[in-house]
Amino acid sequence: MPGVGKKSATRMAYYILAQDRGFARSLADEIGGLHERIRPCSVCANYTEGELCEVCASPRRDRGAICVVEHPQDIAVLEASGEYQGTYHVLGGVIAPIDGVGPQQLNIASLQSRVEKEGTRELIIATNPTVDGDATALYIARLLGGRKITITRLALGLPVGGDLEYADRLTIARSLRGRVPLG
Amino acid sequence: MPGVGKKSATRMAYYILAQDRGFARSLADEIGGLHERIRPCSVCANYTEGELCEVCASPRRDRGAICVVEHPQDIAVLEASGEYQGTYHVLGGVIAPIDGVGPQQLNIASLQSRVEKEGTRELIIATNPTVDGDATALYIARLLGGRKITITRLALGLPVGGDLEYADRLTIARSLRGRVPLG
Repeated sequence: MPGVGKKSATRMAYYILAQDRGFARSLADEIGGLHERIRPCSVCANYTEGELCEVCASPRRDRGAICVVEHPQDIAVLEASGEYQGTYHVLGGVIAPIDGVGPQQLNIASLQSRVEKEGTRELIIATNPTVDGDATALYIARLLGGRKITITRLALGLPVGGDLEYADRLTIARSLRGRVPLG
Repeated sequence: MPGVGKKSATRMAYYILAQDRGFARSLADEIGGLHERIRPCSVCANYTEGELCEVCASPRRDRGAICVVEHPQDIAVLEASGEYQGTYHVLGGVIAPIDGVGPQQLNIASLQSRVEKEGTRELIIATNPTVDGDATALYIARLLGGRKITITRLALGLPVGGDLEYADRLTIARSLRGRVPLG
């Protein structure tokens, strides 16, 4: 499991053994039942305990914008920024031919039908700024572009509070190319 | 000195002692003469051994653009990106009232006279994306704005090749606000 090495695993095992039997049983039940309790939102594929996830169920969210992410955990990160008021769509990964992941293995068909049905105004493609993430963003832009829809990508550049000296060349190049008017 | 602790300093001292006397003398001369040999470029205040720095002396650079940086080492970082063809201007720091650094302590007057004399087209303010760096950028934009000059700032956003999960909230917020059209 990510972040759990041999040492942490041993420590957890000792901790569980030090509790009474009931604790171990209820923990086992929780873990065993995870897949029954949590399932993908029927609209955006975010994790949810109900039919719709919190964002899709909220009447306050702007349904004209869809932010496309790789994984459900990306939604938590974007929500924490407090910047975004639209809805999301979870792809479930990125196109990676080497790993046998094509568009059919991702939630792209459901995105396409959502865009057609909901009359989406803007699609913000927030896949990671990696080779596969960029290729997937371009694929989606070409598939859904040409309609009355703005397709955007998260800005690349320097991290807030950062220092030029510690940024890599590519990031510096992108922050120069993407420079924004001031004043 | 930055990056040199007690251990590294001791190691260096032993290394110098293991060489012959001549090595220590020539190293001492090099260090002692640094300020005589290297001085600020008379145009942009970058470090140089001559009257003009390499960038200011080059006929291939676009004199219509000035990239304003805090320190000479920032120029090396921007040059390494291979993205920029204009010239530079070194402020020598940022406005920081608490540390007693006002606009008079920085190379702002020389920037202003350069802009007036050279007919600058674009000013790219590449101070660090910190509180003081942002304040300094705004100060310069207000001082030199209103003329026929575009004033821009480096883009803020996700680092290239990065992962949404590891970006901080403010950076995520800026990458959303600064999102760019795709396709």
